[in-house]
Amino acid sequence: MLFIGIDVGGTNIASGLVNDKGEVLKRDKRPTEATKGSEYVIKNIVEAVNNLAKEVGIENIKGIGLGIPGYVDPDEGISRFSVNLGWENIPVVIKLKENFSQTPIFMENDVRVAALGEKYFGAGRGFNNLIMITLGTGVGSAIIINGELYRGATGSAGEIGHTTVFKDGLLCRCGNRGCLELYASATGIVKKANDYIKEGNFTIMMEMIGHDLSKITARLVSEACGKGDKLAMMVMEEAAEVLAVGIVNCVNIIDPEIVIIGGGVSLAGEKLFTPLNEAVRKRLTSNIGQKIKIVPAKWGDEGGMIGAAVLAMVRMGVIAA
Amino acid sequence: MLFIGIDVGGTNIASGLVNDKGEVLKRDKRPTEATKGSEYVIKNIVEAVNNLAKEVGIENIKGIGLGIPGYVDPDEGISRFSVNLGWENIPVVIKLKENFSQTPIFMENDVRVAALGEKYFGAGRGFNNLIMITLGTGVGSAIIINGELYRGATGSAGEIGHTTVFKDGLLCRCGNRGCLELYASATGIVKKANDYIKEGNFTIMMEMIGHDLSKITARLVSEACGKGDKLAMMVMEEAAEVLAVGIVNCVNIIDPEIVIIGGGVSLAGEKLFTPLNEAVRKRLTSNIGQKIKIVPAKWGDEGGMIGAAVLAMVRMGVIAA
Repeated sequence: MLFIGIDVGGTNIASGLVNDKGEVLKRDKRPTEATKGSEYVIKNIVEAVNNLAKEVGIENIKGIGLGIPGYVDPDEGISRFSVNLGWENIPVVIKLKENFSQTPIFMENDVRVAALGEKYFGAGRGFNNLIMITLGTGVGSAIIINGELYRGATGSAGEIGHTTVFKDGLLCRCGNRGCLELYASATGIVKKANDYIKEGNFTIMMEMIGHDLSKITARLVSEACGKGDKLAMMVMEEAAEVLAVGIVNCVNIIDPEIVIIGGGVSLAGEKLFTPLNEAVRKRLTSNIGQKIKIVPAKWGDEGGMIGAAVLAMVRMGVIAA
Repeated sequence: MLFIGIDVGGTNIASGLVNDKGEVLKRDKRPTEATKGSEYVIKNIVEAVNNLAKEVGIENIKGIGLGIPGYVDPDEGISRFSVNLGWENIPVVIKLKENFSQTPIFMENDVRVAALGEKYFGAGRGFNNLIMITLGTGVGSAIIINGELYRGATGSAGEIGHTTVFKDGLLCRCGNRGCLELYASATGIVKKANDYIKEGNFTIMMEMIGHDLSKITARLVSEACGKGDKLAMMVMEEAAEVLAVGIVNCVNIIDPEIVIIGGGVSLAGEKLFTPLNEAVRKRLTSNIGQKIKIVPAKWGDEGGMIGAAVLAMVRMGVIAA
């Protein structure tokens, strides 16, 4: 059975033709062009679907799933609010239905679909209670309870990025203080690296970026860690420690079986996961602490795409936990 | 229909004959005598039940519910671990069955039963997604999702007392740092009041306790607040601010409809709830923040007793959400 999963990011639309075993048979990647407006983005999505369905025929696509950043109404198929896309109340599913009237179309928040992808075909296989955390420009999370996505009373559950780790910490754009996102996101890591460099500390990163501080990225910090750079390792360890506080808070409240970490920053691998696991164990000494697993996501960049296809499979009852 | 609810605390056993409208028809209060061992405590529970059932007859008691502090196995009716009672793996329900073999007996953690009491007959009526937080010697919490108690993968969900509010804060006996419980519990409030007094600050509390610092209690701080004592109000406001961080973290993750605050400290009333609500709104500016309700528990000291009876009603399908 064939599905199409579409991950609509702020920069790119990553889509794939995915079968009900979670295998990606064909890929499509194209710019989102969000600045041109929602109609244009939807046109791009339509083109991606047509490209993916070209050989097999759209009539053989069982369902289409979409992952959209921000606050999504999954029942109505409306993007209520998306900072990354600049969207507010865009009826994405209705618009797509104009082109694919015979195909069931489903939509959810991008982190939530990634969590579904991990649960059914990734690191979360076999677990019914899990938290997925994505470390990218921001810090997002999704919660699966008893095998199902947990959305909360207003659909906003899982805002781990805006939980406080420092009571009197930095002011966040969300209005809260000391939010996890300010420290453990790619943005937070870049800021911290910049701070340390400006204090006059040595790092091989300066050479790697030709002394242009604007070129520091979380990936660069991660690469520098791999080369044994002390400053980069300090930055990564500090991010891991703050992330550990956020994870421990979340685990103390939710008590999941497993925590899956995805997103760009998670690609740092052992440089992140070793200090992270250490800090989590240190803070969680209860019976939870001994059992909890903190693991990297299986699907890197393609987690959203595969997860979006899984969303369609789950909603259509094609796969079971 | 008649039920018996039993709240087994570290100091007292508070029991009640409760009907299926949540009305307490008769009360029994006696010392727990935990230091004499679990057999002795269970003997006290049996005597309480016999006293409450005396007039109506034990055969007319539909069910018995127990609320026990600490980690409870509700399926087996075993108190796995209770610091307050000094218990480890005590098969409470089996022991009670020896005396009341014809009566269904149910057991859960004390905060969880209090949450049930509030949901069915208290401040949580009409809500299916709520968090109950109890501020006593420690800080406990219980989560109700889709109308049902949420226990988590290992039964430890809702450990809000051990979520971190200060990343590098005080070391807690749980092994974590900067735990909410260290600041927002009765113990934390007493400590803070002591600290301020030792710094040489004036407070009418000194007169109230005859200059004996060992007599400071959270209730005293609350009373002094009522009399306009600046130091006491500062202590209470600081506790409220820290509690707000814990609540906001919890709300950001769980996204409930309502947060109910119970336990001794909550009896401080407006002195606690006014700064608490203010601090929560300030930190929660999203769509959750505008909708969330933070309210005092309806049942003060009797929340555990009523909730324990409700536990039996819920498990026996006598009442529905």
